[in-house]
Amino acid sequence: MPKSPKNAISPTRTENYPEWYQQVVKAADLAETSDVRGCMVIKPWGYAIWENIQRTLDGMFKATGHENAYFPLFIPMSFLEKEAQHVEGFAKECAVVTHHRLEPDPDGGLRPAPSAKLDEPLIVRPTSETIIGATFARWLESYRDLPILINQWANVVRWELRSRMFLRTTEFLWQEGHTVHATEEEARKETRLMLDVYADFAENVMGMPVIKGEKTEGERFPGAVATYSIEALMQDGKALQAGTAHFLGQNFSKAQEIKFQDQSGFEVYAWTTSWGVSTRLVGGLIMTHSDDDGLVLPPKLAPAHVVILPIYKDDAQRAEVLAYCESLKTELTQKRYDGDPVRVRIDDRDIRGGEKKWQWVKRGVPLRLEIGPRDVAADGLFVARRDVGGKGQGVARNEFIANVSRSLAEIQQALFDRARQARDASSVRIDTLGEFEAYFQENAPGGLAYCHFVDGAETEAKLREMKVTSRCVPIDAPEESGACIFTGQPSKRRGIFARAY
Amino acid sequence: MPKSPKNAISPTRTENYPEWYQQVVKAADLAETSDVRGCMVIKPWGYAIWENIQRTLDGMFKATGHENAYFPLFIPMSFLEKEAQHVEGFAKECAVVTHHRLEPDPDGGLRPAPSAKLDEPLIVRPTSETIIGATFARWLESYRDLPILINQWANVVRWELRSRMFLRTTEFLWQEGHTVHATEEEARKETRLMLDVYADFAENVMGMPVIKGEKTEGERFPGAVATYSIEALMQDGKALQAGTAHFLGQNFSKAQEIKFQDQSGFEVYAWTTSWGVSTRLVGGLIMTHSDDDGLVLPPKLAPAHVVILPIYKDDAQRAEVLAYCESLKTELTQKRYDGDPVRVRIDDRDIRGGEKKWQWVKRGVPLRLEIGPRDVAADGLFVARRDVGGKGQGVARNEFIANVSRSLAEIQQALFDRARQARDASSVRIDTLGEFEAYFQENAPGGLAYCHFVDGAETEAKLREMKVTSRCVPIDAPEESGACIFTGQPSKRRGIFARAY
Repeated sequence: MPKSPKNAISPTRTENYPEWYQQVVKAADLAETSDVRGCMVIKPWGYAIWENIQRTLDGMFKATGHENAYFPLFIPMSFLEKEAQHVEGFAKECAVVTHHRLEPDPDGGLRPAPSAKLDEPLIVRPTSETIIGATFARWLESYRDLPILINQWANVVRWELRSRMFLRTTEFLWQEGHTVHATEEEARKETRLMLDVYADFAENVMGMPVIKGEKTEGERFPGAVATYSIEALMQDGKALQAGTAHFLGQNFSKAQEIKFQDQSGFEVYAWTTSWGVSTRLVGGLIMTHSDDDGLVLPPKLAPAHVVILPIYKDDAQRAEVLAYCESLKTELTQKRYDGDPVRVRIDDRDIRGGEKKWQWVKRGVPLRLEIGPRDVAADGLFVARRDVGGKGQGVARNEFIANVSRSLAEIQQALFDRARQARDASSVRIDTLGEFEAYFQENAPGGLAYCHFVDGAETEAKLREMKVTSRCVPIDAPEESGACIFTGQPSKRRGIFARAY
Repeated sequence: MPKSPKNAISPTRTENYPEWYQQVVKAADLAETSDVRGCMVIKPWGYAIWENIQRTLDGMFKATGHENAYFPLFIPMSFLEKEAQHVEGFAKECAVVTHHRLEPDPDGGLRPAPSAKLDEPLIVRPTSETIIGATFARWLESYRDLPILINQWANVVRWELRSRMFLRTTEFLWQEGHTVHATEEEARKETRLMLDVYADFAENVMGMPVIKGEKTEGERFPGAVATYSIEALMQDGKALQAGTAHFLGQNFSKAQEIKFQDQSGFEVYAWTTSWGVSTRLVGGLIMTHSDDDGLVLPPKLAPAHVVILPIYKDDAQRAEVLAYCESLKTELTQKRYDGDPVRVRIDDRDIRGGEKKWQWVKRGVPLRLEIGPRDVAADGLFVARRDVGGKGQGVARNEFIANVSRSLAEIQQALFDRARQARDASSVRIDTLGEFEAYFQENAPGGLAYCHFVDGAETEAKLREMKVTSRCVPIDAPEESGACIFTGQPSKRRGIFARAY
C-alpha cells in the first residue's frame, strides 16, 4: 500500500458513512456478498469476532440459569396461520419450502419435482416462537416443571430486498431465548434480567454504550405486552437497536396452549418471554469504534490481541528475528487478559512490510508489534496501539510483557469512554417541534433527542413524515412534567428519538 | 419409579435393539420428535453433549490450523445443475425454496404468494461444496493464498422419509471442513490428517473404538477421488460410519474454477478436500456405551461428571445436608478433569428419591452421590459408578475428593476398553462365501467380517442381495495374498463387511 493516502479507508466517514462502512467490512476481511441474494459469507476474521461474542454471551446466559437446545429450521405454515390470526403485524417476507425433491427437467437442468410437492409448505424460521411454543406446551405439565429457561443459537431467514452486511441480511445468525414462568412477576423479572445481561455485554465487552428502555406501542414485537431494547448511537448520528427482550404476558401461552397445573391443582396459562441478539452486533461494533483507517476492535472481542510483524532482510536476520518473536509470543501467551491467555499472532507471510502493516491496522488488532534486528539487539520492540493511531514507540521487551494485560484493559476502557463521550455529545433535550425539525433536517448530524411525547397516531405520523423513529423510553428516565412536542398533551417522561438503522 | 423392574429401559437390548435405542433417547431426555416431519428437537441434555463434542472438535480443528467461517444456508439451483452434470450419484432429496413471501388466501389461511415466486429456486444446503467452492474460486488468486483451511459449523437438510433420532434426520447439525491446496500431496496429507483427528476424537474422547479405512468405489462420496471413513461397531453387530474425509483431487476445482497462479506464473487448478462429522456421533455414543438402564456417558463428554442427590426428611436435615453438599460441590469444582474443572450438579428438586436417582442413572452421569444426615455425621458419602452399575458404596469425603479426577479417568478408559473388547469379540476373518452367508444370516448377531475381495459389480450385487455393505479397507491392513470370496479373483488386502446404519 502506498504511503501517500492519509487514510487507509476511502471514502472517510465524513465523506460517505454508508460507503465507508462497506469499505471497512471489506478491508478488515469480515464478510462479503455471496452468490445468494441478500446472504453474506462471513469470513474467518468476522466469524472469529462472532465466536467471541457467542462464547461470552453463552457464558452469561448459562450463569443466569439458561440451557441451550435446538429446534427445527422449518415451521409448518399452519403454525404461522395461527399467529397471523393472533398478530396483526405479522411479517410475511420469508423463505417458503414447497418441494422436497429436484428432478431433471427436459432442458437438461433441474426443477422441483411436481410429484414431491409438500402437502403443507414449510417456512424457514424467521424466529422460533411458534415451534418452540408448541414444544413447551408438550413439556409443561406442572408448576414443578417451571421455570423453563431455554436459549437457541441458530440461523434465521427474513427476506430482505435491500441488504447490508451484518446490519440487514436475509439470513443471519442469532440467539433466541425463550422462557416460561409461573407468574407475571417472574416473567417480568426475567425480561429485565436479560435486558441487563445485554446492556452489560454491550458496554463491558463490546465497549458500546447503550440505553436500556421500553419501546413504544408501534415499535413493539407483535404479540408482546412490552418490548425492551438496548439502543446505541453510531458515529453518523443514527441509532442502532442492538438487542431486545420481550415480556409476552400470556398472549403466546394462550395462542399455543402453554399451561400447567398450579400448586392448588388448577390448570392455568403460563407467562412467557423471549429475547435475542444477532450478528447485527458486529455491525454495531464496527460503527461504534472504527476510524478512517479501518476496523478498531475492543480487546475483549479481538481474535488477536497482539500481532507481531517480524522485519528482516536476509535469511540470517530472519532466523534471529523469528526466534526472538517466537519466544516473545510464548511469554505473552502466559499472560492473561479477561480470563484467557493473551491471544498473539506472528505474521511471517512473504508480502511487503507496508502492506502487511496496513492489513493489520485495517483488521483492528489492538496492539501491533514490529520487530527487526535492531530491536532484537536492544532487547526491545516497537509497539503501536490501534485505538490511538499514530506511529507507535519503542519499548523494552520485559516492560511490554509486564504491562500487556494492563495495556489491553486500558484500550478496552478507552474505547468505551470515547464512545460514551461521542454519544453524550450527540444527545440533546429538545422541547419544541421547531427545534426537533431543525435537529433532524436532512443534512444535520443527527443524534439522540430526549423529548416529552405522548404515544399515538398523531405522534407516529409526524415521525414517519420526518423519517425519525422513537427509540425507547429509558428505564431510568426520571419523572418530570412536560408537554408532548408533537401534540401538546401533558407528558410525564421523555422518550428518545433518532434516525435509525 | 418402582424398584421391581430389573432394568430401567424396556425393552432391553436383546429384546429389541432399535426400540431400546428410542427408549434410551427418551429416558435420557436427549431429543424428541418435532412437529416437522423428520426433524427432531434436541433437548438440553442432548444438546449439552453436542456442545461438548463441538467444543472439543473445534479445538482440534484450530490446533491443526483451520479457521471457522460461515456460508449461506441456500444454494442456487443452478449450482446443483452443474454438479448434477458432473456427478452421477447426485442426491436430489432436498428442501426446495420457491417463494419468498406468504399472503392471505381466500379461506383465511396463508399461501405462498404467486407474485413472490423466485426466478431461480433455492435449495436448503444438503452440504456446502458448491457454494463454498464458488467462494474459494473468488478468494484464490496466487499460490501465496494457499492453503485455504476452512471449517463450518452448520445445519444441513437432506429429505428423509424414514428418520431416526440422531442417526438419520431431515435436518441435522454438523461441521464440514473444506480445504484447498497447491499440490496433490498436500491435499492427500490433509485428508489423512483429518481422518486421524476424527479417529483420535472418537477413541480418546467418545471412548468409541474405530477403524480408519478407505471406502470402496460404490461407497465413495460423489465426485471424490478417495473417501476415507472411521467405522465403529455398535452393540447390535451393525457398523456405523462415524466420520468421513474426502480427497477430491481436482474434480471440484475444475468444475468450479478453483485455480491459482503458481510460483512459475502458470495458472493451475488447485487440489481440494472436504471432511465432516454430524450429530450422528451422538447416536454412535449412545449405541456404544449404553446399557439396559439407559445412557452411559464417557466423562469427557458428560454435561455433568458428578451429580449429588441430597436426602433428608425435614427442614432441619435439609439445611444441614444441603450445606454439606454445597461445600462438597465447591471442593470438587476445584479439581480438574480433562483440562476443565470437574462438572458437578446438585439435584434438590422436590421429587421422590427413587425417581430422582433413576433419572440420573438413565441420563448416564458417570458418578452419582447420595448424601443423607448419616453421611454428613460420618463425613462421608455414598457413590455409585454408572459404568459398572450395582449399588455403589460408602466412601470418606476427603478420599472421594482426592480421587475424583482419577476415578473419571478410570471410567473413561474402562468404557473404551469394554467397547474395544466387544468390537474385537465381534470381528472375524472369513474366507469362504458360505461362511460369510452364515455369518450374516438374518438372526445371526452380526459383526465385522474381514474378507478378501475385489471391488466390482459382481461383489456389489452379491452384497446388496444379502443387505451387507462393504465398510472400508483398513488403512493399516497388511498386504497378504488371498482370493475374493465373491468372485474368486486374486486379492491383496482384506476389506471389512457388515450390516450398517
